[in-house]
Amino acid sequence: MTRLRLTVAYVGTAYCGWQTQLIPNGERPTVQSFLEAAASHIAGVPVHVHGAGRTDSGVHAEGQTAHIDVPDARMHIDWQLAMNTLLPRDIRVLEAVPVSSDFHAQFGVVSKCYEYHLWPNRRFTLPQRYPFVWACGPFDADKMRAAAQYLIGTHDFASLCNAGSSAKTTIRTITSISDRLFDPETGESIWRFEGKGFLKQMVRNCIGMLVAVGQDRLKAEDIPEILLSRDRTKAPQTAPAQGLTLKFVRYNEQ
Amino acid sequence: MTRLRLTVAYVGTAYCGWQTQLIPNGERPTVQSFLEAAASHIAGVPVHVHGAGRTDSGVHAEGQTAHIDVPDARMHIDWQLAMNTLLPRDIRVLEAVPVSSDFHAQFGVVSKCYEYHLWPNRRFTLPQRYPFVWACGPFDADKMRAAAQYLIGTHDFASLCNAGSSAKTTIRTITSISDRLFDPETGESIWRFEGKGFLKQMVRNCIGMLVAVGQDRLKAEDIPEILLSRDRTKAPQTAPAQGLTLKFVRYNEQ
Repeated sequence: MTRLRLTVAYVGTAYCGWQTQLIPNGERPTVQSFLEAAASHIAGVPVHVHGAGRTDSGVHAEGQTAHIDVPDARMHIDWQLAMNTLLPRDIRVLEAVPVSSDFHAQFGVVSKCYEYHLWPNRRFTLPQRYPFVWACGPFDADKMRAAAQYLIGTHDFASLCNAGSSAKTTIRTITSISDRLFDPETGESIWRFEGKGFLKQMVRNCIGMLVAVGQDRLKAEDIPEILLSRDRTKAPQTAPAQGLTLKFVRYNEQ
Repeated sequence: MTRLRLTVAYVGTAYCGWQTQLIPNGERPTVQSFLEAAASHIAGVPVHVHGAGRTDSGVHAEGQTAHIDVPDARMHIDWQLAMNTLLPRDIRVLEAVPVSSDFHAQFGVVSKCYEYHLWPNRRFTLPQRYPFVWACGPFDADKMRAAAQYLIGTHDFASLCNAGSSAKTTIRTITSISDRLFDPETGESIWRFEGKGFLKQMVRNCIGMLVAVGQDRLKAEDIPEILLSRDRTKAPQTAPAQGLTLKFVRYNEQ
């Protein structure tokens, strides 16, 4: 068997997230299920796709990473091309490269980068951008940058972790939060979060809190107390999935 | 009656272009038909939507312009909000403002601006960008800029006008062609065309010709002869609709 590292992009709108689960009737499919069907078809044997981590229903990716083990007898195939031929248009394999058998897409993660797109105009959302932004309305970016300083570093993020997490600890490290303008004409901006790993819906809860500060619904100085409370109900609402993109996953060898 | 100027954005993927036509069974609807249905519903009387010009099936817009005449008794309504409530998500009214009754969305046009998005990577298209780009593969942008100089100005564009045009003359003026990088990470670039007006599929034929030069399938110096031939079959193929966006329409009063 040869291990392949897959870099995968998808528009999450049509999918019930990354991870395959017991699917109730009528539920939308997952990205993983489509990748496994394609890889298994090409391999001629069932292939398990092991991702770097889950993404929620509706969340997008430009650099999700996964590994698969495929029979050496099928290594003459151009795996990227073959998989893209079988996959739906809103899932693309950007890269499929042989890696050492000790590469592990989940356990080898050094850091992850997520980007969240904010749309400041309350009157309309450009339909071209609608599936990729949160139309949160106007906000004060300076206040949000100041608030972000309370989140950067190692904290107990229990108040920013939604119910249903199986994580053993709620302590995580955010190494950086930065923002840039996506389009000066529309004011769409990108908020980038980097860290070793994130709890369930933690990025969406972080940006939800930053926007609350940027819209004067919360004071930046209250953030430390909210973190200390370890109480999810003390923090603002979760920002919608559609604004979020898993931008890239970093591994040691890169 | 009060005349309203509408600025309209749409993702053209699902539509059979801007203009309503006798629709054969099973054909996709047009953008105009949805706008007319919404406006007529709000006005309580049939409303005709008069656009600045057609856009082809699959072409997008961020600043299509149209005018409608609505009963004064309905002028207390927030027309932008009301129309967006009734319209599908991929059509948005960005602005609905009262204008003088001598404003005419088609006859008052001073210039139009189209943008064409090129995707240089042949291995994959990011699914987020797939509906908005032509994945033409690598090209030499310098060669394309040199070739563009042969198109700028007033010429007979008969060789770049597709069959089925009802235009009285094929002479048009392109005032500028410029390009910029949309995203340095992916290499996606935007080619902007401005002019008083364009023939049927003329922008798509222009960019098709420029890309042919950028990919060494045509020499820039051969362009004048192709224009002089007035023969559509002498020029390269029409570029796909999905890369094209009607960016804005300019009027005298603006």
